[in-house]
Amino acid sequence: MAAKRVGKQSVRFSSPPVITNTFSIVGPMEGKGPLGHRFDTVLEDVFYGEKTWEKTECKILREAVFNVLNRAGLKPTDLDAVLAGDLLDQIVSANFAMREVEAPFLGLYGACSTLAEGLAIGGMLVDGGFADRVVVATGSHHETAERQYRFPTELGVQRPPTAQWTVTGAGSCLLQSQGNGPRLTSATVGRIIDLGSKDPNDMGSAMAPAAADTIRQHLRDFAKGPEDYDLIMTGDLGSVGVALVREILGKDGIDLGDRFQDGGLLIFDRERQDVHSGGSGCGCSAVVFAGHLAKLFAEGKLKRLLLAGTGALLSPLTYQQAESIPCICHAVSIEVY
Amino acid sequence: MAAKRVGKQSVRFSSPPVITNTFSIVGPMEGKGPLGHRFDTVLEDVFYGEKTWEKTECKILREAVFNVLNRAGLKPTDLDAVLAGDLLDQIVSANFAMREVEAPFLGLYGACSTLAEGLAIGGMLVDGGFADRVVVATGSHHETAERQYRFPTELGVQRPPTAQWTVTGAGSCLLQSQGNGPRLTSATVGRIIDLGSKDPNDMGSAMAPAAADTIRQHLRDFAKGPEDYDLIMTGDLGSVGVALVREILGKDGIDLGDRFQDGGLLIFDRERQDVHSGGSGCGCSAVVFAGHLAKLFAEGKLKRLLLAGTGALLSPLTYQQAESIPCICHAVSIEVY
Repeated sequence: MAAKRVGKQSVRFSSPPVITNTFSIVGPMEGKGPLGHRFDTVLEDVFYGEKTWEKTECKILREAVFNVLNRAGLKPTDLDAVLAGDLLDQIVSANFAMREVEAPFLGLYGACSTLAEGLAIGGMLVDGGFADRVVVATGSHHETAERQYRFPTELGVQRPPTAQWTVTGAGSCLLQSQGNGPRLTSATVGRIIDLGSKDPNDMGSAMAPAAADTIRQHLRDFAKGPEDYDLIMTGDLGSVGVALVREILGKDGIDLGDRFQDGGLLIFDRERQDVHSGGSGCGCSAVVFAGHLAKLFAEGKLKRLLLAGTGALLSPLTYQQAESIPCICHAVSIEVY
Repeated sequence: MAAKRVGKQSVRFSSPPVITNTFSIVGPMEGKGPLGHRFDTVLEDVFYGEKTWEKTECKILREAVFNVLNRAGLKPTDLDAVLAGDLLDQIVSANFAMREVEAPFLGLYGACSTLAEGLAIGGMLVDGGFADRVVVATGSHHETAERQYRFPTELGVQRPPTAQWTVTGAGSCLLQSQGNGPRLTSATVGRIIDLGSKDPNDMGSAMAPAAADTIRQHLRDFAKGPEDYDLIMTGDLGSVGVALVREILGKDGIDLGDRFQDGGLLIFDRERQDVHSGGSGCGCSAVVFAGHLAKLFAEGKLKRLLLAGTGALLSPLTYQQAESIPCICHAVSIEVY
């Protein structure tokens, strides 16, 4: 059996867990974006029959978990664990969603890196023999995130061009030790990187060094080049962060080329939709992966993906206390072979 | 090799990871409690040279990580992962503490169950061959938790008798695949249990059903009785929650007897210290384990421990929106043999 620990920060799965099913649910604006037709459910409004946006966020996350199970003909009690998280204080969307899911639950917080963090840990649980079936799910809601992190949208505060638009959406992945689908082949767990960036309206700049650090380390740990992947997708840096990652890695002689894309840029049409630097939020990379990329795998159009989830780990309080923004990026490789 | 998955919610470690070192740091009030002499560092005041309590909380968590490494003669770069979390929004104490710890980081949120959650996941990473050395660390601070969850302490709001006192403290455990010390032999991952309790000043009542559920499931999964442990320690239910767990499990014919204790009751002298129902917070079970129980193991006075970490997974916002309190309990068995 090949070594599971690889290089400084990575693991290679010896029996790569299979992503047998995924599910994605998004808000109306995401439904009108370029990937609108790739999502399983598009909401008609941002309330979805609930009285508060927080309850809506919880509801879409819960539906993402139940629907991915339905697709596989499974019940919550068939699961060995659910790994989930979100952007809200105390990850309440995940905690409350899981009230109705009768399965062992592990709560994670990694901001927008949570899906990748969950896939990395979930992969280790399955490959390590501790679980046969695990669901990884994350979600976010534009209105809840804006009022928690910045300003309630009702205030109409103008957003700077570097700001990103938190996606309303939730995505889920069912990881199994057996089955058909793309396989989780490796994971690189990120370190906290904080170069002193302090602007919560420019998280792309804050997160870019962490994304570059983890992508560089992943390639080094496995002695790979960008050409070993068809797609390297960060989630979510927006236009500002993407340009910075290209620049940072370019200086190291790593040319990511056209295969480098960002979930926050794929989900919206920045010409037509007023989202400034692009999409963001736990739900963004989750629905881009569970909706769009999972379909690319099924269609045979994608074979080797490096999914690099990026998180800006600030809070409104640390921003008010004039702290900088610690960031992280976790990467998982997902392949068919 | 024996099966790693056991029963409905549990795993058994095939090469039980060793807790080779621990470190504990507490505030002045905890230092004056019955376990004061069992902690490694006792602060003289609740600021510890910082301008805000949030910075203090971050600092003690960072020191817990660095000091447990020092004890083992290791550097952060020797670690395969740090698993950490805390009570603050977006687990900023952990995120910011990890800025200076150059090691792969996985952020967790499980409220006061975070230490047990981290030990469970950390155990799977080490036993699964994905890591050789992992630090699990959690912390909390009385003043930051009060102003985030309830009222700033400066307001002098009267607390009801069912309220618990958030511990100022941080604890860390170094888990290694080899070495000397008590071993992590199994873990039971909890489900969310919410029986409708809504009072954030009575979290013991809210958490007791989750604690009972996981302890019962653990005993069932391994066909064990309470007598198979020298100590079953919840963290942290306080006096109200402890009585409820005894009652709930008593109805199932499970008599926990004297071996059942609670970290929140051990850490303070409720006669002498004005803490109402007892201690709580991510730091409570962390310092009681890393300080007191780790010493009991070293002294040969404890051989078989079931550590059952309990978390109340509410947020101030869900309380204001009249939601109930979802709770969870994760259990890990730690043994010398």
